Amino acid sequence: MKRLDSTHADFRAGFTRLLADREGDTARVDAPVAEILARVRAEGDAALCAYTERFDRMPITPDRLRVTEAEIEAACAQVSPDLLRALDVAAARIESFHRAQLPADLRYTDAEGVELGMRWTPLDAVGLYVPGGTAAYPSSVLMNAVPARVAGVERLAMCVPTPDGVLNPLVLAAARRAGVSEIYRVGGAQAVAALAYGTATIQPVDRVVGPGNAYVAEAKRQVFGRVGIDSIAGPSEVVVVADAGADARIVALDLLAQAEHDALAQSILITTDAALADRVAAAVEAELRTLPRAAIAGASWTTHGAIILVRDLDEAAALINEIAPEHLELLLAEPEALFARVRHAGAVFLGYQCAEAIGDYVGGPNHVLPTSRTARFASGLSVFDFLKRTTFIGAGPDALLRIGPAAVALARAEGLDAHALSVSARLDAQRSGADKA
Amino acid sequence: MKRLDSTHADFRAGFTRLLADREGDTARVDAPVAEILARVRAEGDAALCAYTERFDRMPITPDRLRVTEAEIEAACAQVSPDLLRALDVAAARIESFHRAQLPADLRYTDAEGVELGMRWTPLDAVGLYVPGGTAAYPSSVLMNAVPARVAGVERLAMCVPTPDGVLNPLVLAAARRAGVSEIYRVGGAQAVAALAYGTATIQPVDRVVGPGNAYVAEAKRQVFGRVGIDSIAGPSEVVVVADAGADARIVALDLLAQAEHDALAQSILITTDAALADRVAAAVEAELRTLPRAAIAGASWTTHGAIILVRDLDEAAALINEIAPEHLELLLAEPEALFARVRHAGAVFLGYQCAEAIGDYVGGPNHVLPTSRTARFASGLSVFDFLKRTTFIGAGPDALLRIGPAAVALARAEGLDAHALSVSARLDAQRSGADKA
Repeated sequence: MKRLDSTHADFRAGFTRLLADREGDTARVDAPVAEILARVRAEGDAALCAYTERFDRMPITPDRLRVTEAEIEAACAQVSPDLLRALDVAAARIESFHRAQLPADLRYTDAEGVELGMRWTPLDAVGLYVPGGTAAYPSSVLMNAVPARVAGVERLAMCVPTPDGVLNPLVLAAARRAGVSEIYRVGGAQAVAALAYGTATIQPVDRVVGPGNAYVAEAKRQVFGRVGIDSIAGPSEVVVVADAGADARIVALDLLAQAEHDALAQSILITTDAALADRVAAAVEAELRTLPRAAIAGASWTTHGAIILVRDLDEAAALINEIAPEHLELLLAEPEALFARVRHAGAVFLGYQCAEAIGDYVGGPNHVLPTSRTARFASGLSVFDFLKRTTFIGAGPDALLRIGPAAVALARAEGLDAHALSVSARLDAQRSGADKA
Repeated sequence: MKRLDSTHADFRAGFTRLLADREGDTARVDAPVAEILARVRAEGDAALCAYTERFDRMPITPDRLRVTEAEIEAACAQVSPDLLRALDVAAARIESFHRAQLPADLRYTDAEGVELGMRWTPLDAVGLYVPGGTAAYPSSVLMNAVPARVAGVERLAMCVPTPDGVLNPLVLAAARRAGVSEIYRVGGAQAVAALAYGTATIQPVDRVVGPGNAYVAEAKRQVFGRVGIDSIAGPSEVVVVADAGADARIVALDLLAQAEHDALAQSILITTDAALADRVAAAVEAELRTLPRAAIAGASWTTHGAIILVRDLDEAAALINEIAPEHLELLLAEPEALFARVRHAGAVFLGYQCAEAIGDYVGGPNHVLPTSRTARFASGLSVFDFLKRTTFIGAGPDALLRIGPAAVALARAEGLDAHALSVSARLDAQRSGADKA
């Protein structure tokens, strides 16, 4: 963990290193992914089965790729009623928030008499990628699938690797609760290929969403254009801003909640209170002694963690906007003043009580968020990922006479004569009609 | 041009071929683009100058990369007042429509007492790519830059290749009118690299938008993740649906306006009226005899053009949604009924008077639209491309007690104990506080 102090002469250098130290080049998997995509495109289900046998150590035939209703039922029956209720709470809250996000269509007639508008429509079919193994999170299934359903997507096809054939019952329960229509036991780049190109068993979709490892990310990058994709997720981070009123153990747990995801995760505390900084540092060490995922969380905290002492919240605001954190907790007596000055952040948690983990499960907003400083330009998953816009224009004869000549002038200047003629022919017809009248 | 008839037995096969015939693999430029990106990243301005000399036949030094204010002034002085007025009409109308698009923030307190919301903020800096040579369209500058400014983007850096050193005065005038803050005479993958990674002369941006050739498209694909990008544009298309009330020459000009862009462009007429189909086919041939860009438009029409005769507008609706056209003209007496059934289209033009070319220049909605069937999942350029969302949650003690336990249960089920502890520690504090009270 690095301690930085904004009053020190070398602060800027240390802060820059802190941001840069997770950048590095990710493993180059372009070539193997391109090979997997090409093979799935050429061989379809046979390639899916071959790759699943190789990567998930699970011999499989095409007829077994799809998880059956009976398997889903059996899996759900294994989940405790308490957990099913917790899933319900989460799903209902996610649904409610994403419903509030739904945008309104636009339609109006402007001063020139031109009718203008924009209509939102859902995608027909979406593919949800759900990571397998230790990262198979039922909450992620809800966060990906519920917004798609709220947007009006009819067909939701989910791919999840089942290493050694093991299905995660809670993942299946979440998928059923979220309205996923099809589940396939396929993972990795081969799953993305199947969703993008289609096979005999898996019909192609229009957009692929969901987090994954480097192979999944590269596969999404390579199929982008043929289908839509969501942002490519990198390592995750949290910035916690805390004042003297924050409880040091709670701050420590919030930092560790991020750190326990991944050794590449980054947890940063920004505070004006040197005594709190010391107490949090000690509390992190204390919690690491008993935390089950201490190996991961400790590695993250040691390598990428930081406590930054700042003069005031003005400095905190500037640092936040430079980091553009995925998660931002404002454990402050008055969080709103600082929040008003945050330009770049994926999701913000206001006040002492609002643990980031609330947002991971039951807050309502999405937990699929822009990582690794991409909140500078990207947003969390939302209904907007599952909708697209159609703009429209209607112009009657009068409106055409008012705005058409400028179009003709510009089309001619661009050397696009058919463009110009398509408008001027209409203008001529109107004018000659007006002459006759 | 292909004539298809939905009553014929081989219609489905012919229609499928029509959609597939532009697919094919685009030229593989991954490797040369990767090399260009790496070199610009390593060598900065020196690489930009070397590539500009090679590809644009223009020796240049770093101090000349940026187009000066004096050059912009001089260029604007060459543009006729009529054209400047036409640019003004276009810019004002684009600005007005995109202002109407601006979304509202969301903030509310739900039944559990949880404060929830979503805030839109603009990107800090955007890079606009403008193609050079014959495709240097001032209208595209307006369509890319104006929405960014409306969204609130402060810094707009434009890159435009200037082959043989030739600046396009109208492009510069459009850039000035649209509020572009910096213009660089750099094109191709090297321009995208400069915008994404930055050089001594060109500061990096957060998102790169704008159409380009295969190198530009591949470069955008490769920098995606480090910066945001817009959709990758493929060949363009129009579907015109016309009834007996449409004028055949005007329909023909609308089809040719699309065809004159590019030999890969596709123009499709769908009609219920066999006589109109014949008249339009003849009118296209007649116009091709005099059209300046007849070589390009003729090649497009011959290879990719089609006239599809359908039984009724139900069939038309189904075909439209399968094609998901970039542009859709409804040259119908009653366009609204069919429009209501369109699920997938980039932009729609309603009624006999509304030439697609109106939308290219002065309609108001964006002309940067999802091409090649990507309207299934993608949208035209808009203010949404230059904004991102920050969601937020605030929970006081009571709200936490209501929703916290479900978060704890799910976090434990996912094996994320620090997540669970970060919530349960707060719940414990509230409960013990309540006990004491």
